[in-house]
Amino acid sequence: MGRIGDAARMAVAEQALAAYAELDAGQKAGFFAQIRDGFSPDPAHIRAAFAAYDADPSAGTLVPLFNAVEPPRQTLLRRLNTAPGATLKLVNMRADLLAAMRKDPSLAPLDADFAHLFASWFNRGFLRIERIDWSTPAAVLEKIMNYETVHPMKGWEDLRRRLDPADRRFYAFFHPATGNEPLIFVEVALTRDIPAEIAPILTAPRRAAADDATTAVFYSINNTLEGLKGVSFGNFLIKQVVAELAAELPALKTFVTLSPAPGFAAWLASGEDPQAADLSAELDLGAWLNDRDEAARLKPQVEALAARYFTGARTKSGAPRDPVARFHLGNGAAAWRVNWPGDLSDGAIRRAHGLMINYLYEPAEIEAQHEAFVRDGTIATGAPLAAVLAR
Amino acid sequence: MGRIGDAARMAVAEQALAAYAELDAGQKAGFFAQIRDGFSPDPAHIRAAFAAYDADPSAGTLVPLFNAVEPPRQTLLRRLNTAPGATLKLVNMRADLLAAMRKDPSLAPLDADFAHLFASWFNRGFLRIERIDWSTPAAVLEKIMNYETVHPMKGWEDLRRRLDPADRRFYAFFHPATGNEPLIFVEVALTRDIPAEIAPILTAPRRAAADDATTAVFYSINNTLEGLKGVSFGNFLIKQVVAELAAELPALKTFVTLSPAPGFAAWLASGEDPQAADLSAELDLGAWLNDRDEAARLKPQVEALAARYFTGARTKSGAPRDPVARFHLGNGAAAWRVNWPGDLSDGAIRRAHGLMINYLYEPAEIEAQHEAFVRDGTIATGAPLAAVLAR
Amino acid sequence: MGRIGDAARMAVAEQALAAYAELDAGQKAGFFAQIRDGFSPDPAHIRAAFAAYDADPSAGTLVPLFNAVEPPRQTLLRRLNTAPGATLKLVNMRADLLAAMRKDPSLAPLDADFAHLFASWFNRGFLRIERIDWSTPAAVLEKIMNYETVHPMKGWEDLRRRLDPADRRFYAFFHPATGNEPLIFVEVALTRDIPAEIAPILTAPRRAAADDATTAVFYSINNTLEGLKGVSFGNFLIKQVVAELAAELPALKTFVTLSPAPGFAAWLASGEDPQAADLSAELDLGAWLNDRDEAARLKPQVEALAARYFTGARTKSGAPRDPVARFHLGNGAAAWRVNWPGDLSDGAIRRAHGLMINYLYEPAEIEAQHEAFVRDGTIATGAPLAAVLAR
Amino acid sequence: MGRIGDAARMAVAEQALAAYAELDAGQKAGFFAQIRDGFSPDPAHIRAAFAAYDADPSAGTLVPLFNAVEPPRQTLLRRLNTAPGATLKLVNMRADLLAAMRKDPSLAPLDADFAHLFASWFNRGFLRIERIDWSTPAAVLEKIMNYETVHPMKGWEDLRRRLDPADRRFYAFFHPATGNEPLIFVEVALTRDIPAEIAPILTAPRRAAADDATTAVFYSINNTLEGLKGVSFGNFLIKQVVAELAAELPALKTFVTLSPAPGFAAWLASGEDPQAADLSAELDLGAWLNDRDEAARLKPQVEALAARYFTGARTKSGAPRDPVARFHLGNGAAAWRVNWPGDLSDGAIRRAHGLMINYLYEPAEIEAQHEAFVRDGTIATGAPLAAVLAR
Repeated sequence: MGRIGDAARMAVAEQALAAYAELDAGQKAGFFAQIRDGFSPDPAHIRAAFAAYDADPSAGTLVPLFNAVEPPRQTLLRRLNTAPGATLKLVNMRADLLAAMRKDPSLAPLDADFAHLFASWFNRGFLRIERIDWSTPAAVLEKIMNYETVHPMKGWEDLRRRLDPADRRFYAFFHPATGNEPLIFVEVALTRDIPAEIAPILTAPRRAAADDATTAVFYSINNTLEGLKGVSFGNFLIKQVVAELAAELPALKTFVTLSPAPGFAAWLASGEDPQAADLSAELDLGAWLNDRDEAARLKPQVEALAARYFTGARTKSGAPRDPVARFHLGNGAAAWRVNWPGDLSDGAIRRAHGLMINYLYEPAEIEAQHEAFVRDGTIATGAPLAAVLAR
Repeated sequence: MGRIGDAARMAVAEQALAAYAELDAGQKAGFFAQIRDGFSPDPAHIRAAFAAYDADPSAGTLVPLFNAVEPPRQTLLRRLNTAPGATLKLVNMRADLLAAMRKDPSLAPLDADFAHLFASWFNRGFLRIERIDWSTPAAVLEKIMNYETVHPMKGWEDLRRRLDPADRRFYAFFHPATGNEPLIFVEVALTRDIPAEIAPILTAPRRAAADDATTAVFYSINNTLEGLKGVSFGNFLIKQVVAELAAELPALKTFVTLSPAPGFAAWLASGEDPQAADLSAELDLGAWLNDRDEAARLKPQVEALAARYFTGARTKSGAPRDPVARFHLGNGAAAWRVNWPGDLSDGAIRRAHGLMINYLYEPAEIEAQHEAFVRDGTIATGAPLAAVLAR
Repeated sequence: MGRIGDAARMAVAEQALAAYAELDAGQKAGFFAQIRDGFSPDPAHIRAAFAAYDADPSAGTLVPLFNAVEPPRQTLLRRLNTAPGATLKLVNMRADLLAAMRKDPSLAPLDADFAHLFASWFNRGFLRIERIDWSTPAAVLEKIMNYETVHPMKGWEDLRRRLDPADRRFYAFFHPATGNEPLIFVEVALTRDIPAEIAPILTAPRRAAADDATTAVFYSINNTLEGLKGVSFGNFLIKQVVAELAAELPALKTFVTLSPAPGFAAWLASGEDPQAADLSAELDLGAWLNDRDEAARLKPQVEALAARYFTGARTKSGAPRDPVARFHLGNGAAAWRVNWPGDLSDGAIRRAHGLMINYLYEPAEIEAQHEAFVRDGTIATGAPLAAVLAR
Repeated sequence: MGRIGDAARMAVAEQALAAYAELDAGQKAGFFAQIRDGFSPDPAHIRAAFAAYDADPSAGTLVPLFNAVEPPRQTLLRRLNTAPGATLKLVNMRADLLAAMRKDPSLAPLDADFAHLFASWFNRGFLRIERIDWSTPAAVLEKIMNYETVHPMKGWEDLRRRLDPADRRFYAFFHPATGNEPLIFVEVALTRDIPAEIAPILTAPRRAAADDATTAVFYSINNTLEGLKGVSFGNFLIKQVVAELAAELPALKTFVTLSPAPGFAAWLASGEDPQAADLSAELDLGAWLNDRDEAARLKPQVEALAARYFTGARTKSGAPRDPVARFHLGNGAAAWRVNWPGDLSDGAIRRAHGLMINYLYEPAEIEAQHEAFVRDGTIATGAPLAAVLAR
């Protein structure tokens, strides 16, 4: 496409994307390999540009080196993006690529190109936030319904129950080039205290008004397009929603999540903590599910290990083991309180023995906590969690 | 900004842009030099990544090399772009940079970073076309009025004369992140023949309807934001407007420009063409301006030299000398007819002795003409121009 | 409310409507009686104005008579309508009134006031047509779903099946003062022939495109707000939809309904036609529902009587007995073809033994047929129906 | 049009309005007379309906009498209103009628029909308020510019000066059936005290922000369409704007006008007040216009007579003589302060010797003041005016 004019390129890009859509998974993998190899920079150019830079490393010699090194694949993808509706197609193309990479990891360099471009294209500055409610177009609501995986919805009535009452809010980010496709969305309940269980939020009767709410609970955050993996929106969305809610409802004082703990059961079973193995086995037996006394007996142990899990369990690189914890603590939130049992749905039992946790977004603390977390891995804890740790 | 979280970055970006706005020109130049030098990649990293690539030049070793070579300046600019309204501010920052470069060309590497990012951000896929008319918000119309430099407007009445009649059209590209700022716009007159003079188009009474028009005349194309220099929109805009007009008014058969020839007077004066010097002097005298006979006498010579100018005068790299010609011929248009005198405004007299030219956009020929132009510099000529050349 | 200022009235109107909303059915009936009597014109004024008119019946003496006769109730309703959101509340108030009138017919004069005002307020000139599709706000779609009574919907999936395919259309009228409340809507299927049965339209797979459709089938028309009884929208809506579809899809040549015959079973049972009684009894037995041969045997008789029903059965005032026939024939449509069995749903069996009919809207004939119908009750018939009559 | 169907009527209405548009003033007058006479109710019907009513004056016998008396002209106008864009055409038709009535007052009964319908169609419940600013479509701004007659604008720059600064507001009412045609608009300046002169408001530099304003000054209210004469919007608009401003800018405490006194010069000249004749003559001489001392000398006398004018000068029916005073006092405002000289424009000198007045809208007092004004003509006065009266 290099030789042809801008507008002609647009037509060629359209045809190329249409042709791509006809390929099966195997052909797509072949296509990806072809692009990876066929649109590589010329090693001779790179070597020459490097030699010049090496002789005199300066801003002036860097420009030609950068130009020599930048993969022509990126230019190709930018040109494909001129076709009408191309952006969403390219996002979905990368989802195909991620799937193909599971079989053929050597495609990763092409993924790096996608990731690099998408970070530019889906820059926060280009996103717009929108409230989602019962007057949102049905086509968007249907997407929301399908994309909700944290606490899946059972249909339109369930969606309406979460969207429509006065004490509920949905917000989503949209990008102008991907139209009515939500990129990420968050579900919020407005309450009068910090909830410990998800079921009442999903099913209980609502209050008629939101004015007396003191607490905004972020109880589900969903990324939607697999092809945007690694492009981070969540932090911006939470911050923006906090700002909008604070402006709309001055009585709101507390901004908190009610979050799953998807890595808890696996960590417990791993026996990494010496006291975990027995508890893991007991929880697996499941007697506590139907026996209130048994649950009451286990509760202090679960809380204690949960507290250790969130504050002590780390990956090799020192990050929190729990992926949701990584996200919220990285945003500057504090681990506020462990809640057990907080979610009795099948998935939550399997992944976390029903454990949930609140992360607190305290606007005045976010920045300092975030910095401490980034600098030396310090995890901010709330009073309830600290009390458990101190037991 | 590297260590801090996404949302905190947004606040820092906002403060940084606010602080930048307070700087004077000298301080801005200092700021640019600081960024150019302070956000450079580490030569040691580059050398190490190059060594690995050099040993095994592959897609896999290219990724780390690319990451090492990519100037942190680009990451910085992307982060600044997370602030509300940042995109336009960054575009204007680059306009400042271009001004500073005139004094200090060593700032060019930073400009390369801006150019690289803007090519991505202002991708055609993100632009939307809009018709501009008398129901457009006044704030946008005012910008249009100020940005029109090809045939400047004298005020609101003049604007209205160009916008509002049934046989006139304005179209502009907008980008979602720069709001109501037109990036480029084109002015169109719907006529029944190919015009040779600009004055009647700017001032003559209009026809009541557009249905019987056979010809769409693109008589003014204006880029607006200096900071977007080098990001090309014009070709896309013309193609899109041709498509929209053809769909709206099936009677339209001819799509043509009425364009200035801004380099003609200088070329003539340069004496590059042996017959030019005398003519240049005669035209400079200006007797023809008030003497119809004199003008008639000069006309054949002007036309002959104009034809040679458009088809023969080249830059060192072989491109047409005339910048407007480069644009339209590069888009695949044909040089249709030279018109003298076509524009008696001061600027047009000074730059082109009043010469104008029509470029013809013939949809069926555009692609082939564009390719021939790119491949070997072939300039497509229309019958009237060919006739002059053959005289 | 007469003595107070405009803006104060607005607040009083708001309070009055809020107070009304708290009343139970009995209190509402009392309120209606009170208004009917308390806001009556003064007989003395009327007599005086009449005397002046009677002495000199002219445009000049009519004005005071009109003013004396116009019930202050209308002024009251106009003033109530200044409150925010009042229009829909007044429409619903009239629905309450209609319910109350079933017990107390003496409230009819108040209903005449509502009807008079609504005819003015809901003038065609104030309505806007909108296409309803899958990008319509869910809140509107939910209303549509609830208001559909001709062929009720089973839920969101059913709604989507009717709205979303390329060969389906919904259109509705909205009034600016009643917001997102559809006043009437029509459901259209785009087909390649005139359908005789409703089931395939409601359930069969759809064609991917609408471009090759030759026939637009109006298969369901629903008025929504009971309080707008007697304010006619249907004729305007059909005409407007015909115009929009003809403009969008030039291949459409036939505009036809597939309509119920809600009065057929009752008419047949009435024995008004000497041959009807036996057929009515046989159809009631219902053996034909499961016995194809039996149905085939009865078919000619049903068709013959149906043809007589649509062309001969009249009310005392000479109008067609069938209410749906009155509507479409009054609009200038022709009774095209009787279809039996066309609808095997319970309601259609009960009211019409499953009979359906197509009314043809032939743009070139509509006016003449309408006039003939209004002038002397002439019913236009299509060839298929004429053939049945001629058997 | 009575016999034809709804949709056919729409076409006939369209033709009728198009035909009307071709008539000259004389033909229009003829047309009006024809309608007045040709669409009159039947006296025999009226007499019969009256006889029934007279025998038993009840809600039941009133309905047929009302139907007999209602001029068929109103039905005709309602039917014309079904044509696309008809509402504005009918408003303009009434403007023609008002012009024709100046020559032929016998057309008044037809005007009563227009007035009656427009009161219904342009009910407050159907209007929407919109803020007018620099992002408003130019077509609307141009209308605003042309309709401003209280303090005429000199062009776009003048308009911008009134619209665009942070401490200025424009609001207008629109009706859905008349599209982008403003029906009435008000111009507001946000200040820190109650202004006594108009010139600084129209020309002085603006403050950058509106947050510190304590006072909203309504300094120009314009009705736009002559055909809507007698349909009152102003009161509603002021009240709505007060509500919107109070919500947006909580620091606003004072809502006040700066208004002309269009009847002052004539009243002074009339000599109705024994001390007025001399002052009127002196003011007419105009020496005070260029002589500061002379103005200072006259000021107490002007203020004293102005105070008497606003509180004492009445029409035969007891209403305030000044038409602007009638409007604001009728709305419940108080006559706050007389300002002399407040407006040195030609018109203001001619009509009011440059006098202006502030009317104060004190939300807590409006209702009581309005009632007292309506009940017994009591005029609420502010402290400054009271002080002048007490001198």
